[in-house]
Amino acid sequence: MRKVYLDNAAGTPLHPEVLDAMLPYFKQHYGNPSSLHTLGQEAKSAIAEARNKIAALINAKPEEIIFTSCGTESNNLAIKGIALRYEEKGKHIITSSIEHFSVLHSLKTLEKWGFKVTYLSTDKHGLIDPEAVAKAITDETILISIMHANNEVGTIEPIAEIGKIAQEKGIIFHTDAVASVGIVPVDVREMRTNALSLSAYQFYGPKGAGALYLKKGTRIMPLMNGGIQEDGRRPGIENVTGIVGMGKAAEMANLEMDKRIRKTSALRDRLIKGLLQRIDHLYINGHPTLRLPNNVNASIEYIEGESMLLFLNQKGVYAASGSACTSRALKASHVLTAIGVDPAIAQGSLLFSLGIYNTDDDLNYLLEELPPIVQRLRQMSPLYKP
Amino acid sequence: MRKVYLDNAAGTPLHPEVLDAMLPYFKQHYGNPSSLHTLGQEAKSAIAEARNKIAALINAKPEEIIFTSCGTESNNLAIKGIALRYEEKGKHIITSSIEHFSVLHSLKTLEKWGFKVTYLSTDKHGLIDPEAVAKAITDETILISIMHANNEVGTIEPIAEIGKIAQEKGIIFHTDAVASVGIVPVDVREMRTNALSLSAYQFYGPKGAGALYLKKGTRIMPLMNGGIQEDGRRPGIENVTGIVGMGKAAEMANLEMDKRIRKTSALRDRLIKGLLQRIDHLYINGHPTLRLPNNVNASIEYIEGESMLLFLNQKGVYAASGSACTSRALKASHVLTAIGVDPAIAQGSLLFSLGIYNTDDDLNYLLEELPPIVQRLRQMSPLYKP
Repeated sequence: MRKVYLDNAAGTPLHPEVLDAMLPYFKQHYGNPSSLHTLGQEAKSAIAEARNKIAALINAKPEEIIFTSCGTESNNLAIKGIALRYEEKGKHIITSSIEHFSVLHSLKTLEKWGFKVTYLSTDKHGLIDPEAVAKAITDETILISIMHANNEVGTIEPIAEIGKIAQEKGIIFHTDAVASVGIVPVDVREMRTNALSLSAYQFYGPKGAGALYLKKGTRIMPLMNGGIQEDGRRPGIENVTGIVGMGKAAEMANLEMDKRIRKTSALRDRLIKGLLQRIDHLYINGHPTLRLPNNVNASIEYIEGESMLLFLNQKGVYAASGSACTSRALKASHVLTAIGVDPAIAQGSLLFSLGIYNTDDDLNYLLEELPPIVQRLRQMSPLYKP
Repeated sequence: MRKVYLDNAAGTPLHPEVLDAMLPYFKQHYGNPSSLHTLGQEAKSAIAEARNKIAALINAKPEEIIFTSCGTESNNLAIKGIALRYEEKGKHIITSSIEHFSVLHSLKTLEKWGFKVTYLSTDKHGLIDPEAVAKAITDETILISIMHANNEVGTIEPIAEIGKIAQEKGIIFHTDAVASVGIVPVDVREMRTNALSLSAYQFYGPKGAGALYLKKGTRIMPLMNGGIQEDGRRPGIENVTGIVGMGKAAEMANLEMDKRIRKTSALRDRLIKGLLQRIDHLYINGHPTLRLPNNVNASIEYIEGESMLLFLNQKGVYAASGSACTSRALKASHVLTAIGVDPAIAQGSLLFSLGIYNTDDDLNYLLEELPPIVQRLRQMSPLYKP
């Protein structure tokens, strides 16, 4: 049976060059980067090289990169670490209602600790209005956290405009760019962001490796205390192979960015067109143009998304109904609900996230297999009238 | 030139079977464990299997294992997470002065947040008196955190006795077992511990993979918020390959435990004897018998430890002067200072940590190369009189 992986937002396959770069650090160069001897210094140099490559991908300085274990840790470190470091200046934070749970739930914790949070709503495409951000600012506002691109509906937010507003008001600006770094160009200077979260497994790097860009001069309270790694801002033994893999993945993303965008956005557009042609009562979620090149999110009326996923899985097609981090919770995506999709329709949503290893044949197969599944499931629905 | 790695406490080489177990999860089974499709479920099963193996190594139940990124994270999660979860019961914590910095510095953070911490001193061998623990308990005590084995001097603490005291008083007991899990038998039931930290790269597993044992019924406030991974106690995409590697490393440690202890303790005893025979004014730190089988910590008078390390490095011998996490800080180890070693002598300390890949020839080489280095360095010291 054909296998078609269309769940790249939940994790990409490893780029072969990434694994090749990692293997020597498993086998020969196994030193602790903090050790003074040659074996330690080899590992230390490898981390420095990876840091340069990641900085280059987002136009940061190497010393502005803090390695973490994942995007969730980066978001927790940024939000809690900045809020607690600057709480004497004020306790108000601005965010949006469509952020990843690692942002929203970190903010819930801060609310328990006395912070006030404004959750901005979006338009029906998931777009945040920079003017709404400006209006929400008070004398107490110390942090704005707005994601670069939404991981479920793919909408790309006007980050540079929000960054300009934050900078003018002297407010720290964090953006969760886990869904976008390595997928579209990201430039922390253009964005005028103080902090930016990223994760390697979103762009053909390994799981277990994330990073936080923290602009020079922006201070942070570490989540963890311990040794001197990452200048004490993230102690603990470095995941050397993970960091080396993330560095190589960043290098490849930088090199292949244009080609990757051309390839995946062509696939995306073909898939959207094909779905709309073949399935009635199907709606594409997210912004029509300001959209990640790898994202197709469709709501299909009169069906429950997870049933479709299970039937697709039987045909070897691997897709998702929303964020993988919450996929076991059988309720409508908070993102779809926030952008105003009727909860009944939101239940019937599929997230196809494309990758550089997908082909036209993958889409042909999906477009052939999905319509009969939809038809079969709809026959069970008392509401559906063809 | 011969290469002799005697820095296993700073990180072990990977067991070949560990890397073999990990590779398929880089290459074929790259799914997100939270994804519903086959590729996700393969990863989920691999994590469940690793969880079983790690639980088996320490006599825990699988559901009592929380995966983290490293021992430092496990210690931070245990100490901050338990303290903040139970602070309404009291704000007093008992620890020792020879803990790892990830314990001591986490406690410093809690002190800033209003907690009181008692730092117990040890005897000259680094041994903590259970009676001293009992005496330090007050009505406000909510947590005792005492390490199982010291990572620098190798002393193994009377954890079961301390656990008994904690249990009788109804106080939560955490032990940092990063230096001991996989090296000596660890049984969380015998130890009567509520929480225990471990790290894979200490026992021939990969960097980037740690775990916290948390006894059923003991509650914790997560350090991070986000998705539903690890039942919400440690959200973020799982480091699947790291976890698989840690599981295999735990399995191998379980299988080979007796053989490993026999081998390394024989090497340890030979090395201690050889050092004492060949170098005058040399003192072995730590307990003479209650000692990790892989640990040799020696203070050599009239010399600065880092100079010896650099000369040894030139001869291909990789060793340490203390904990790798603090090796760039050019001051005497807080552990040696705490056990009463004169700071001037503590400066001249070497930590040789043995591993299962070391041989008698490794020791022969070290015992041949080290004495002339010591002699040469002592000639520069105005204080030394042979």
